[in-house]
Amino acid sequence: MLFRLYRPVAAGLPRVIRVKSTPSRLCIPAYSTNDSFKPQYPSLTFADDNSRTQGWKVMGTLLGLGAVLAYHDHRCRAAQESPRIYSKEDVRAHNSPETGVWVTLGSEVFDVTKFVELHPGGPSKLILAAGGPLEPFWALYAVHNQPHVRELLAEYKIGELNPEDNVSPTLEASDPYADDPIRHPALRINSQRPFNAEPPPELLTENYITPNPIFFTRNHLPVPNLDPETYRLHIVGAPGGQSLSLSLDDLCKFPKHEVTVTLQCAGNRRSEMSKVKEVKGLEWRTGAISTARWAGARLCDVLAEAGHQLGKTEAHVCFEGLDSDPTGAAYGASIPLARAMDPEAEVLLAYEMNGQPLPRDHGFPVRVVVPGVVGARHVKWLGRVSVESEESPSHWQRRDYKGFSPSVDWDTVDFDLAPSIQELPVQSAITAPHDGATVESGEVTIKGYAWSGGGRAVIRVDVSIDGGLTWQEAELQGEEQCPRKAWAWRLWQLKAQVPDKLKELNIVCKAVDNSYNVQPDTVAPIWNLRGVLSNAWHRVHVQVVP
Amino acid sequence: MLFRLYRPVAAGLPRVIRVKSTPSRLCIPAYSTNDSFKPQYPSLTFADDNSRTQGWKVMGTLLGLGAVLAYHDHRCRAAQESPRIYSKEDVRAHNSPETGVWVTLGSEVFDVTKFVELHPGGPSKLILAAGGPLEPFWALYAVHNQPHVRELLAEYKIGELNPEDNVSPTLEASDPYADDPIRHPALRINSQRPFNAEPPPELLTENYITPNPIFFTRNHLPVPNLDPETYRLHIVGAPGGQSLSLSLDDLCKFPKHEVTVTLQCAGNRRSEMSKVKEVKGLEWRTGAISTARWAGARLCDVLAEAGHQLGKTEAHVCFEGLDSDPTGAAYGASIPLARAMDPEAEVLLAYEMNGQPLPRDHGFPVRVVVPGVVGARHVKWLGRVSVESEESPSHWQRRDYKGFSPSVDWDTVDFDLAPSIQELPVQSAITAPHDGATVESGEVTIKGYAWSGGGRAVIRVDVSIDGGLTWQEAELQGEEQCPRKAWAWRLWQLKAQVPDKLKELNIVCKAVDNSYNVQPDTVAPIWNLRGVLSNAWHRVHVQVVP
Repeated sequence: MLFRLYRPVAAGLPRVIRVKSTPSRLCIPAYSTNDSFKPQYPSLTFADDNSRTQGWKVMGTLLGLGAVLAYHDHRCRAAQESPRIYSKEDVRAHNSPETGVWVTLGSEVFDVTKFVELHPGGPSKLILAAGGPLEPFWALYAVHNQPHVRELLAEYKIGELNPEDNVSPTLEASDPYADDPIRHPALRINSQRPFNAEPPPELLTENYITPNPIFFTRNHLPVPNLDPETYRLHIVGAPGGQSLSLSLDDLCKFPKHEVTVTLQCAGNRRSEMSKVKEVKGLEWRTGAISTARWAGARLCDVLAEAGHQLGKTEAHVCFEGLDSDPTGAAYGASIPLARAMDPEAEVLLAYEMNGQPLPRDHGFPVRVVVPGVVGARHVKWLGRVSVESEESPSHWQRRDYKGFSPSVDWDTVDFDLAPSIQELPVQSAITAPHDGATVESGEVTIKGYAWSGGGRAVIRVDVSIDGGLTWQEAELQGEEQCPRKAWAWRLWQLKAQVPDKLKELNIVCKAVDNSYNVQPDTVAPIWNLRGVLSNAWHRVHVQVVP
Repeated sequence: MLFRLYRPVAAGLPRVIRVKSTPSRLCIPAYSTNDSFKPQYPSLTFADDNSRTQGWKVMGTLLGLGAVLAYHDHRCRAAQESPRIYSKEDVRAHNSPETGVWVTLGSEVFDVTKFVELHPGGPSKLILAAGGPLEPFWALYAVHNQPHVRELLAEYKIGELNPEDNVSPTLEASDPYADDPIRHPALRINSQRPFNAEPPPELLTENYITPNPIFFTRNHLPVPNLDPETYRLHIVGAPGGQSLSLSLDDLCKFPKHEVTVTLQCAGNRRSEMSKVKEVKGLEWRTGAISTARWAGARLCDVLAEAGHQLGKTEAHVCFEGLDSDPTGAAYGASIPLARAMDPEAEVLLAYEMNGQPLPRDHGFPVRVVVPGVVGARHVKWLGRVSVESEESPSHWQRRDYKGFSPSVDWDTVDFDLAPSIQELPVQSAITAPHDGATVESGEVTIKGYAWSGGGRAVIRVDVSIDGGLTWQEAELQGEEQCPRKAWAWRLWQLKAQVPDKLKELNIVCKAVDNSYNVQPDTVAPIWNLRGVLSNAWHRVHVQVVP
């Protein structure tokens, strides 16, 4: 069942992408869509069945109970009156407990203000949908799409959306970003053009696998709109080898390799660094990190086909995207050849993300996935791969995404002196409760994520509620990971007793990886002018109500 | 030229070890010695020619100048009187500026009290030899062994050693440590039985390659006295493969592989941790780390010869030493098979250390060297290698050398819950000036080392003289290292300006590796009951004299 979720965007871009369905090598399911018109999550599937089933069982149980209670509390509400007509703007104006909380499902409008506090998943999650459609959220949490939930919702119906409201706005032809895809409304936008957004912490660690629509998005340029029929990936051949020009079908003929990988932006948690001293960059909070199940061809297989092999001298695999700035310069990055050629490093030319073709924001039709390495090297909309004696000449390889001492400023920085970021350091953050929240005395459940670069597994997360004086070990969730190949995060939680009479908690977390690297205590000594590599202890301050 | 340096130990152990010199495969130079009788540094050679030449050039220049000045200041001293006779105890009693500083060279006794302050290498280095022979130190710093230095020294001669003092004490047969080798007097002893000792910071970073006699020593048991003629290394064969019993000559027939590797004890810098709260373990200061050029057969080659290969399931290579406790239990440890079989990981069965046969304290005739991994896995006096589905059952693999949260104490510890330490986290320390020292205002030279585990290169060392408020970048010395294979440390130094009127400096250092992992700010949050993994910022407090 597909709802029309957004105002359709005028079809200034009539390319209908159609991917061949070849029974023997079906790497992208047959579909016909212009994803400006259709949401990118027709049916969310998760590769990690365990975490899905477990998480949803809990939520389902809670929701079932909550729904029954709520149903009885609110059955007096009339739903028989002839429907009133509202505009989308009317709905959008009701987006908080103060203004009232309205939501839509299909063409129906609901005032769920009084249900917010009863929401089994917690008020904060329902508020994420306030003033807009429920569908994107129900798509994330399929447990909602059941008769008893619809019956409950019907009690809150106050009218219908104005059918005339579904008019198509015209594309602004001059705007290079006008053709960008539609995004999930839950994303917290740090920059609209280029689009950069992160999932809110409430959703970030709800599932081990981040659903595609809320996977953090880091774009440097407008999103190209590529035709998978004509798409070609150019692999420059080795001396004596041959260059390749691969269609999507060609790429799918290489053995398909799947791997669960956490991607993290070098700028994740930059907002904490900019509190110390101004930095240049987007104000990412804790959400510039997400996890997906990726599938594609192994880069080592494709490079070998083009005649490349590991030599004695250092070399680099350079990637160029098909996104470009007004001068035509493409996004680019590189990784060491040694990593690219190592089958155990599992570097992918990925064409699937959580069982779906890559969404446009995540590199459709093909992106690089470099497990354990900073997001900036996972080049999207991949157009060209070559092996060079030096790193990519791209601005983003040479003049960005490097770490410096706190003593270096924009007058003294010499980008040539620091190595490009490849593997990232150990990281963790608290996703619940959020900073400034109020918690009840007794027991508090603290949740978060932890991850380390280079395939190093997280072995422990220490949590403190007294600012770091005493520590407790959090429970690590999800499966243990393959040694040296722990490419994905661990979610964690701790149920901590809140001592009587405590009025506030200074919650802190820090992770340890299997090289026993730890996070530094404070931000200032790792401050750097670009605000990257922000991995100090994460701190959250909350009030306690008796 | 070999001096007789120590009281010879009675020959309760008449095994004369003699290694065959086969011209085609000369892996150990022909020699005939019982190393209880002879020092282990007959002629110190260094693989790293650059650092040697550079360092000695500077020292040589200084020494030359200093010697001329000193010669003129002290030529009035008489050296013509008939020699007085002193016992070694007499000499030993003069081991500080307060008691007077006496040293010996051969049978001659010198009172160098007045020369201490003039010593070109610094007073602290000469004091290391106070009360004993100069030879072990001149062996480290060959620049001394020159006519003008001998001429200078002659000015301070006060007499001769009593020839009758060279009597051999009898071995105490009941003492399992009685057969331990003689050690260099500069070593700071943390435990005599088993012998555990570290070089003083003044010497630790004098050379990039640590001279064998002052390489830190971590023994868990008495040192076995092995006959290289009868020595056999047992390699358990794979199913379908064959077990090997390798003599030293056999081992030398495998391709010889050389690699410069820094070894660090998990307990390095434990003394800082025990200041926070009591821990169990030896009080290592900053010297449980050293660097050598190792040579031997690659473990992967030897395992392949025995039919082993990398399988799909996790496996471990278990090592057993030929040292054993009174119950006969040997020292043991293991590493993952994936590391052992990876040629790029360069795991060695080493029989040479800085161009010499292994000294007895360092595993003669064969030890494991596992680049990037904690010292505890570099099993010495290697007797047996096997591939198992589980880690070594050894106490030191399962019940020691693991990291825990600060919240874990001896009542709550569960060793099964933490992974054995393999790769170590990023580390650095200041070796000069030392804590409590006095420095002059103007400029201070700060020196130290930095290293990280897993082949991660140190890319930056930040130094602060104000306790971490502001930072300066130290100059990294030595060669840049191979990416992913940076097995050895970087030495560093910083010449910092000391602002006027400052009465004290709180010097701090912290290193960054190429995964951009950093050291934590403070010790308490990484405290653990065994006092391992102590890698917080290193701090040194010094007074400034105007």
